[in-house]
Amino acid sequence: MTPLGRKPGASAIVTLLTDFGTADYFVGAMKGVILSIAPGVTLVDVTHEVPPQEVRSGAFILLAAYREFPPGTVHVAIVDPGVGSSRRGIAIEAGGYRFVGPDNGIFGWIVDREPDARVFHLSNRSLFRPAVSSTFHGRDVFAPVAAALAAGMPIEQVGDEIGDFARMESLRPVRGEGGELRGAILHVDRFGNCVTSFTREDLPVDAAPRGFHLAVGERDIRSLRRFYAEETGPGRVFAIWGSAGFLELSANRDSAARLLSVRPGDPVALTVG
Amino acid sequence: MTPLGRKPGASAIVTLLTDFGTADYFVGAMKGVILSIAPGVTLVDVTHEVPPQEVRSGAFILLAAYREFPPGTVHVAIVDPGVGSSRRGIAIEAGGYRFVGPDNGIFGWIVDREPDARVFHLSNRSLFRPAVSSTFHGRDVFAPVAAALAAGMPIEQVGDEIGDFARMESLRPVRGEGGELRGAILHVDRFGNCVTSFTREDLPVDAAPRGFHLAVGERDIRSLRRFYAEETGPGRVFAIWGSAGFLELSANRDSAARLLSVRPGDPVALTVG
Amino acid sequence: MTPLGRKPGASAIVTLLTDFGTADYFVGAMKGVILSIAPGVTLVDVTHEVPPQEVRSGAFILLAAYREFPPGTVHVAIVDPGVGSSRRGIAIEAGGYRFVGPDNGIFGWIVDREPDARVFHLSNRSLFRPAVSSTFHGRDVFAPVAAALAAGMPIEQVGDEIGDFARMESLRPVRGEGGELRGAILHVDRFGNCVTSFTREDLPVDAAPRGFHLAVGERDIRSLRRFYAEETGPGRVFAIWGSAGFLELSANRDSAARLLSVRPGDPVALTVG
Repeated sequence: MTPLGRKPGASAIVTLLTDFGTADYFVGAMKGVILSIAPGVTLVDVTHEVPPQEVRSGAFILLAAYREFPPGTVHVAIVDPGVGSSRRGIAIEAGGYRFVGPDNGIFGWIVDREPDARVFHLSNRSLFRPAVSSTFHGRDVFAPVAAALAAGMPIEQVGDEIGDFARMESLRPVRGEGGELRGAILHVDRFGNCVTSFTREDLPVDAAPRGFHLAVGERDIRSLRRFYAEETGPGRVFAIWGSAGFLELSANRDSAARLLSVRPGDPVALTVG
Repeated sequence: MTPLGRKPGASAIVTLLTDFGTADYFVGAMKGVILSIAPGVTLVDVTHEVPPQEVRSGAFILLAAYREFPPGTVHVAIVDPGVGSSRRGIAIEAGGYRFVGPDNGIFGWIVDREPDARVFHLSNRSLFRPAVSSTFHGRDVFAPVAAALAAGMPIEQVGDEIGDFARMESLRPVRGEGGELRGAILHVDRFGNCVTSFTREDLPVDAAPRGFHLAVGERDIRSLRRFYAEETGPGRVFAIWGSAGFLELSANRDSAARLLSVRPGDPVALTVG
Repeated sequence: MTPLGRKPGASAIVTLLTDFGTADYFVGAMKGVILSIAPGVTLVDVTHEVPPQEVRSGAFILLAAYREFPPGTVHVAIVDPGVGSSRRGIAIEAGGYRFVGPDNGIFGWIVDREPDARVFHLSNRSLFRPAVSSTFHGRDVFAPVAAALAAGMPIEQVGDEIGDFARMESLRPVRGEGGELRGAILHVDRFGNCVTSFTREDLPVDAAPRGFHLAVGERDIRSLRRFYAEETGPGRVFAIWGSAGFLELSANRDSAARLLSVRPGDPVALTVG
């Protein structure tokens, strides 16, 4: 077995998630650096369209995607308003995966979910590009470290293990004074589906028949659909279990986000029964 | 020879065409699933920017691209307003290629073109992700089936061959009462070129010298150019043979779609002589 | 060693830079052609979002990215308003890399930088797709030539070496009458950072303490920051050394291009001391 259980014959995988967009040389330069250090690696773009500097949005997308990849995959995630300042770079080993990026909470929800997570400070400068710019650590720090890990380097060689890394505020909803659960909109996707922070723990299968309502702004949503096309009413917003494991607000062939005037971070309250 | 004639040493290819956009975790998750089942496969994005739920637009792009790939390539195409409903998933073997996606006509023009096409219902649930969501069959059904095919599984194992699959309305223009050929705008590309449904069968090489006109809205186009820069007049729209084999309406360094106020689906009439 | 020094076991790399966008079949078709001719090649998108027909913008992005790739990489760059006209196609060997695209100056800055550059006219039509369209040389000419080079074909086989290829106006700033250096905005990135044509030759390390000012439109910029977050004032534009080796105009968490109303091609004047 190769490091971290990769199948024989399979090439190492490095995924990239950034807010760099795809119109510039940034992503291409990172890929060139990785392929120079780890020839034959398989590169996969998760997305480069995270809204600029929205760490929370990047954290959600990575959380929803990372476990679909084979064990041993190296996930690079860079949404990094503090590039060049004293914020550290980190690498993480967790759940059979490795992660590389800035120490600003972007991996926080993964560390919360994976009990075996170990976090390391990227302090071994011999791994970096000879001249590290102050504006593009994706190319100069994170890409070469990810490539070294993909090529088989043990994670302990990136630097010291640390415990005081940046965390993300908890995904868990909190109980409000009226007994309702207070959560938030985590993400709005291309189709206008609004991902909430509620999971099946918050709305068990046997609760739906007793009734529930989701309060979003001025609106109150009471219907739970199994699939989009089940709802035929135009402009009707309903709840549905989304593919990332969270309850979503959707509309068939329409944008729930537009119909509800909802944005990421907006509060949602769930009352069951 | 590997299945379907792949060259020895070449890795299997899986292409992806969707309306998922690239800002979310959807495409990344599908790629992770495919690489988990078929390590070493080469993944190629055809596009993820099909306008949301525009099956016809996705069908055109796939039609224009699929034959450029080596025999044996697995083409996944997902524009799927009916996800989670009773619409079936299908796999197709046609012209040396395999295709995987929803049974909604997206492969209809390819089935029309390839006389050896065989269509199969994806009913072998052992190939799917253990828990199939009702909103993301790309990850849970189509990606794992495509990966199994790319890894060498015979297509008969996906389920029963069927004959009652969804078809697409014909691409062929029809003869109007005044002798004109009635066609449609199939697609508008990034540069504003408008792809019509007319082919060289409709406007033979020897017909152009005798003259022709294309009626689009209020406009009448009578000039046929060999290449874009041949037309130097600003704001002048001309016809040109496009790279997908269809007659296109274009303007040099300008958008014909904007100049003509034309959208996909709009009618165009061709009169020769 | 494989041609041009590729490491044993590493697959050949072909990068793609175009203004084709990613919503159409264009990029997918090129990749299919390349994989048909050179199975196992690693394809990397640099960008397909060059503004339509902006040769200068494509030239800048390629200049900033090409050296990050391993020696032997084949870089395809297509921003090509003259497709189908008498403009030639070229291939270049320079600095250990190969380049393929139209002869319109898009590789001009690379030829200026690499003293060993040799330029060849793509006249060997046996390498092209059997039927060359007049609108899509990316698929019909440049992709198959790039694939043949990636597969090991010596560059001399593409056609004759030439000296009268198209060049790009020099990147070097010129001295103005008042002693100032006159340069230009080369590029505006996704974050609104404005890349100027000034390098460390124009503003040496020891010059900054003596003071400098950059005149852009009505504005005068006098501060040089080491990293984005060092500047905390909202709406404050500062100069910073960018990752491509040029002086950039930036604002922390804001768009300098918007704050300055600056576009690519606009003049900038630098006065030191």
